[in-house]
Amino acid sequence: REMTNVEWDAVTAEKGGFDHFMLKEIYEQPKAYRDTMRGRIDESGSKVIFPELNLTEEKIRSINNIHIVACGTAYHAGLVGGTAIERLVRIPVAFDVASEYRYRSPLITPETLVIVVSQSGETADTLAALREAHANGAHVLAITNVVGSSIARDADDVIATLAGPEIAVASTKAYTSQLIAFYLFGLYLAEVRGTQTAEEISHIIAAMQSLPEQVEAMLENTDAIKAYAEHISNHNNLFFIGRGVDYAVALEGSLKLKEISYIHSEAYAAGELKHGTLALIEDGIPVIALATQEALLEKTVSNIKEVKARGAEVMALSHEEHVSSLLKSVDQAFAIPKTLPLLTPALSVVPLQLLAYYASLARGNDVDKPRNLAKSVTVE
Amino acid sequence: REMTNVEWDAVTAEKGGFDHFMLKEIYEQPKAYRDTMRGRIDESGSKVIFPELNLTEEKIRSINNIHIVACGTAYHAGLVGGTAIERLVRIPVAFDVASEYRYRSPLITPETLVIVVSQSGETADTLAALREAHANGAHVLAITNVVGSSIARDADDVIATLAGPEIAVASTKAYTSQLIAFYLFGLYLAEVRGTQTAEEISHIIAAMQSLPEQVEAMLENTDAIKAYAEHISNHNNLFFIGRGVDYAVALEGSLKLKEISYIHSEAYAAGELKHGTLALIEDGIPVIALATQEALLEKTVSNIKEVKARGAEVMALSHEEHVSSLLKSVDQAFAIPKTLPLLTPALSVVPLQLLAYYASLARGNDVDKPRNLAKSVTVE
Repeated sequence: REMTNVEWDAVTAEKGGFDHFMLKEIYEQPKAYRDTMRGRIDESGSKVIFPELNLTEEKIRSINNIHIVACGTAYHAGLVGGTAIERLVRIPVAFDVASEYRYRSPLITPETLVIVVSQSGETADTLAALREAHANGAHVLAITNVVGSSIARDADDVIATLAGPEIAVASTKAYTSQLIAFYLFGLYLAEVRGTQTAEEISHIIAAMQSLPEQVEAMLENTDAIKAYAEHISNHNNLFFIGRGVDYAVALEGSLKLKEISYIHSEAYAAGELKHGTLALIEDGIPVIALATQEALLEKTVSNIKEVKARGAEVMALSHEEHVSSLLKSVDQAFAIPKTLPLLTPALSVVPLQLLAYYASLARGNDVDKPRNLAKSVTVE
Repeated sequence: REMTNVEWDAVTAEKGGFDHFMLKEIYEQPKAYRDTMRGRIDESGSKVIFPELNLTEEKIRSINNIHIVACGTAYHAGLVGGTAIERLVRIPVAFDVASEYRYRSPLITPETLVIVVSQSGETADTLAALREAHANGAHVLAITNVVGSSIARDADDVIATLAGPEIAVASTKAYTSQLIAFYLFGLYLAEVRGTQTAEEISHIIAAMQSLPEQVEAMLENTDAIKAYAEHISNHNNLFFIGRGVDYAVALEGSLKLKEISYIHSEAYAAGELKHGTLALIEDGIPVIALATQEALLEKTVSNIKEVKARGAEVMALSHEEHVSSLLKSVDQAFAIPKTLPLLTPALSVVPLQLLAYYASLARGNDVDKPRNLAKSVTVE
């Protein structure tokens, strides 16, 4: 095939009044959500359409397992996306980081759909994983932000995220656009396989269509998260905890903080911390608890109490209605707007992106070009 | 059912000349390996036998997916064990920490085998996961060290690890005995399903039977690992890296260090570090690289060079024959005895246990009773 050379428009890539590309890209998320949804929801708002896909309905009905393969932030998007697909379609989903997938002789059958995720479409590990999947006969769907990329060209199907060029090394709007792409694809599978009713699908679509405005509302006033970021910027170690999709978002929030603030932060499934890592909880260590999943709230609060009892200083992220009760157990709480439990990652990650940004700034780091990292990792 | 009260013999539980239970238990591993294998390998050394299992050969042939569910160290044993099963039997294995498994509505069919792992057999999260699996109709196999435990009583099948009582909070001989149990069970599945030849099975069994002596050899002189432990005990942050089963062992080595030395250590799939966390690598930070898998050695060395180039001080764990070439890229290297690639975890974890022990000692911690932790976590 021919090489396609994709050049970003220099004007598009300007900072547009923001101090850093990262902050600009955080604020571009409402637009990225809208652009990624546009043309993929029918006019009645009750049906997802993917005219660009080669996947036939027959093929979709034959899938009996899905592998999601990616690296770094894109892998974290896959964790949320795969969870959504499992819940909406009841097909088992396996998750692998690309550098491991290639070498573990993955069990691929003709009924396996492999989904690879990469902002740049040039991630070497992910491209190699795609080729491994192809060599084993899998149908590969790529979710990428660059339609002329190597991964897009090699994949059997592409869902383009329409986030626009992402310049900052730490990915923000590409990640959230990947979430939107996964939600749409999950709904599409559910339609074809009949695993959700039309009413349920309309309900989820309506909630998705409110996300851009909800992100806008969160971005209107960021003073409190900025102050909290400045506070934690004095620490060298901290933990994130969460359950279910909150855990997946905790992993992403933690990675963002590592990448640009250089704080050694680590994310744990909230229930797993007591099986060893609780030994690291000492007086004053910050713990950021994601508690957006109502069904798991009580269990998460138990885990919050475990770390509080060992002296941790806990910040909780939840919905407005739980803040006052959470404040009995935590030191500080932030609320995200209300949405469906499965969609909370598209909102809850936003304050964590801002947290990383302002913590990095407070530590005097080069936000857009953190040390040691490249925007697109084209080596294995 | 009746409650069974299991009391450990007070004499058995004494420290037997060691300063701590943990060190005693590390040195009991050769015996634990032998005891866990005894009676489960036929006299010709060519066949694994499990007379205690209710699983019929017909049932074994019907299994088309396996879920491994556990917490903490037992979960890490499951990662190694599940990898062994996938390679030996080519059945897809999914891994879950128990506190997540319960709440994610796992997709269980009559062809799903669920394997739960718990030293004490009383781990609340794991017991609850077992019950969730039962409620969905799964056959549940428990690997546990306490045959009268709640998990052993509730499970459909039990493979007892014969490690003897484990007193230290940080698990050592229970973990390695769980590995042995998994290897045996994997071979047993391979025999019944005919996925490995008799020669291959004999070959693996022979290698397993050498493990106890190989561990004894490693335990004869621990001065070098003790000196390295004292050196890293001055650091507050470090990383482990590895690929494939080396990554699974890196997770366990890292957890051990966290539990008793309180060093914030974190394990990464070696190829994944560059997708963000590389930003944390700075001058002098220790990185412990597991490089026991020959097929992955070149790739792991690439990752070692990435961290070296950012100033990390790298210790590598490999086989004798690779040490001199590795020493071109690393600051220090330790060798483990030669075994089959799949069995290396049963050897490579031992120096990491000693590393955690001596680092904890050097920091003046209470090795056997680390802060915040309980031996058996009977709360969710």
